[in-house]
Amino acid sequence: MRKRYLMTPGPTPVPPEVLLAQARPMIHHRTPEFSDILVGAVEDLKSLFQTKNDMLIYSASGTGVMESAVVNLFSAGDKVVVCSNGKFGDRFVQLADAFGLEAVKLTYEWDEVVNPIDIERALAADAGIKGVFVVQSETSTGVLNDVKAIGDIVRGHQAVLVVDSITGIGAVDIKTDEWGLDIVMTGSQKGLMLPPGLACVSVSEKAWRAAETATLPKYYFSWEKARKAMAKSTTAFTPPVSLIIGLGEALKMMREEGLENGIKRHESLAAAARAAVEALGLTLFAPPEGRGNAVTPVRVPEGIDGKALVKKMKTEYGITIAGGQDHLVGKIFRIGHLGYFDRFDIITTIAGLEMTLQELGFSFTPGSGVNAAEQVFMKEVTGN
Amino acid sequence: MRKRYLMTPGPTPVPPEVLLAQARPMIHHRTPEFSDILVGAVEDLKSLFQTKNDMLIYSASGTGVMESAVVNLFSAGDKVVVCSNGKFGDRFVQLADAFGLEAVKLTYEWDEVVNPIDIERALAADAGIKGVFVVQSETSTGVLNDVKAIGDIVRGHQAVLVVDSITGIGAVDIKTDEWGLDIVMTGSQKGLMLPPGLACVSVSEKAWRAAETATLPKYYFSWEKARKAMAKSTTAFTPPVSLIIGLGEALKMMREEGLENGIKRHESLAAAARAAVEALGLTLFAPPEGRGNAVTPVRVPEGIDGKALVKKMKTEYGITIAGGQDHLVGKIFRIGHLGYFDRFDIITTIAGLEMTLQELGFSFTPGSGVNAAEQVFMKEVTGN
Repeated sequence: MRKRYLMTPGPTPVPPEVLLAQARPMIHHRTPEFSDILVGAVEDLKSLFQTKNDMLIYSASGTGVMESAVVNLFSAGDKVVVCSNGKFGDRFVQLADAFGLEAVKLTYEWDEVVNPIDIERALAADAGIKGVFVVQSETSTGVLNDVKAIGDIVRGHQAVLVVDSITGIGAVDIKTDEWGLDIVMTGSQKGLMLPPGLACVSVSEKAWRAAETATLPKYYFSWEKARKAMAKSTTAFTPPVSLIIGLGEALKMMREEGLENGIKRHESLAAAARAAVEALGLTLFAPPEGRGNAVTPVRVPEGIDGKALVKKMKTEYGITIAGGQDHLVGKIFRIGHLGYFDRFDIITTIAGLEMTLQELGFSFTPGSGVNAAEQVFMKEVTGN
Repeated sequence: MRKRYLMTPGPTPVPPEVLLAQARPMIHHRTPEFSDILVGAVEDLKSLFQTKNDMLIYSASGTGVMESAVVNLFSAGDKVVVCSNGKFGDRFVQLADAFGLEAVKLTYEWDEVVNPIDIERALAADAGIKGVFVVQSETSTGVLNDVKAIGDIVRGHQAVLVVDSITGIGAVDIKTDEWGLDIVMTGSQKGLMLPPGLACVSVSEKAWRAAETATLPKYYFSWEKARKAMAKSTTAFTPPVSLIIGLGEALKMMREEGLENGIKRHESLAAAARAAVEALGLTLFAPPEGRGNAVTPVRVPEGIDGKALVKKMKTEYGITIAGGQDHLVGKIFRIGHLGYFDRFDIITTIAGLEMTLQELGFSFTPGSGVNAAEQVFMKEVTGN
């Protein structure tokens, strides 16, 4: 009867209400009943993205909509700026390479933020640049890039700004229209609190104009096909019906909480997680000037086996956290708090971490992590 | 308290066992637990496809894996033969066009079967042809193309044979290896009895060799990435976790029934549906020499409004059947019996059809359709 706790930045826990909505009997997708759900979900997504732009939905993982931005906006040989300070920035680099774009790569250490000035310089150096790719919230590192500042820079340029907000949406503020973000994308298994398998992307007028002249071949990910279908309240190809029904339910929950309250909740969870790990004498991976609310990556302390830590949390306490990715394997661990999380999920994770660290022989004051999280939460509740 | 009946050839009804499996709490995809489910599902899929070839799984609709065949096997300008006698053959034509293949189009009326001799001639006329595309079971028309005969023809040629078995798998026999079918694909919302959002494709050694020299750009749908990940019991990108858990459950049910028994059940359901509509004095759309088991398309009789028929079935009796697609809108209706269907689903649909036809003023002997279906089923049960 041991309970299991999913504390990763994706897939994230799915609320029982959403799981049950998805367990309703299957319906056909070419029906007024399904169209109503789809149209309602699209309207709610637009509110969440803070945009009036077109919203397109795909049966795909997040990488699918990342690819959609490449193939819909560009032609082979087009020059683009690709910012990378983590695994998903690297994925944009790989996508640009795979589709023959000429990428000006702005590469950073994974514990650094993207410097908007570098983008400004790159655009100034070459008026022919047609796009800028950036990840708002790096799932791999917890680093938050300042897409508002980047939006201000790209706005006056011909380049289209493509933002991966896959672990941003719902957890941190993103004002798509106000900040001039042409493309914003997310995946279902993140802040939307759904199983993986659905991804969506918002497309600005400026981006549609760029898409008109783009010649990279496309079919499944064609935005034009998706837009035409959405104008008829449907999708170009069979949509992931159960996920969209779940999406309707999840968005209803998010609407009831309110966007601003949801972001505040994520801020609070992130603040508590950070306070807790620092109280334990651990070091946060992301720099103070760029920390998102989706995930708290922590450096594995000297003398501790990072992989063993993650494994022990899972096997002994039933708590699944994430390890590091690529060159950070074994060097960091990541505590997710994105989507369907509340205060006691942080308490649980920190308590599990304290027990695991004690077992691994790491020296700290037992209880100090949980207490630090409690202090953050109490301050909110009592207002002191 | 009116019940609703989904009698379409996709999405098809999802068994409660599968719906509930999908409603289990979310788990992370980079875990031994998920890998076990994935690997088990892949093994069961191979049995279902009757193949030892690689089996790759995508978060996508069926069109996504259709596109995967184009971008992984070919280069722009490659010559291919594309057979089309329905909407999904047409989709292959559109895909070939979208990705710049030079398509030799073998086009048939939608109530005709693809003639394998035409493929033989096309291959003989041009030794440079690199691929042949054909749909085994046309969802749009119920026509079954003879992919065994086509396999025999393509086997000795350099061309790779790409078979869409999206509504074939599970309902009709398909011996992937024995028949020499290089690529076979299906989607989740068909014979696999799942919600839409997952698609899979088997890839032969001959196809892998063709893929080595293919230069069309790809990333999300890269088979190489999928194969490398599958060798490590995982997926290249976040998989549709809940659908794969459901897939495990659905494949278990199919294994328990046995592949041969499952196909026999579909044959019986199709035979009963055909006998019933013919007893009502209606005309089947697919020709006798090529009828699949997934769906029974029926010509709308003179003087009856086909769209009204489909709508009345839905609104008055809660039975969702499918109308015609593209130029067949209003001209045919389609009764699905693919996946989680048994005898009384046919009885229900035919009874609903009888009542609807009476209301629309069509003249026939009431009860004759249901009785014809009963006769088919009784013969099986009693052996007479």
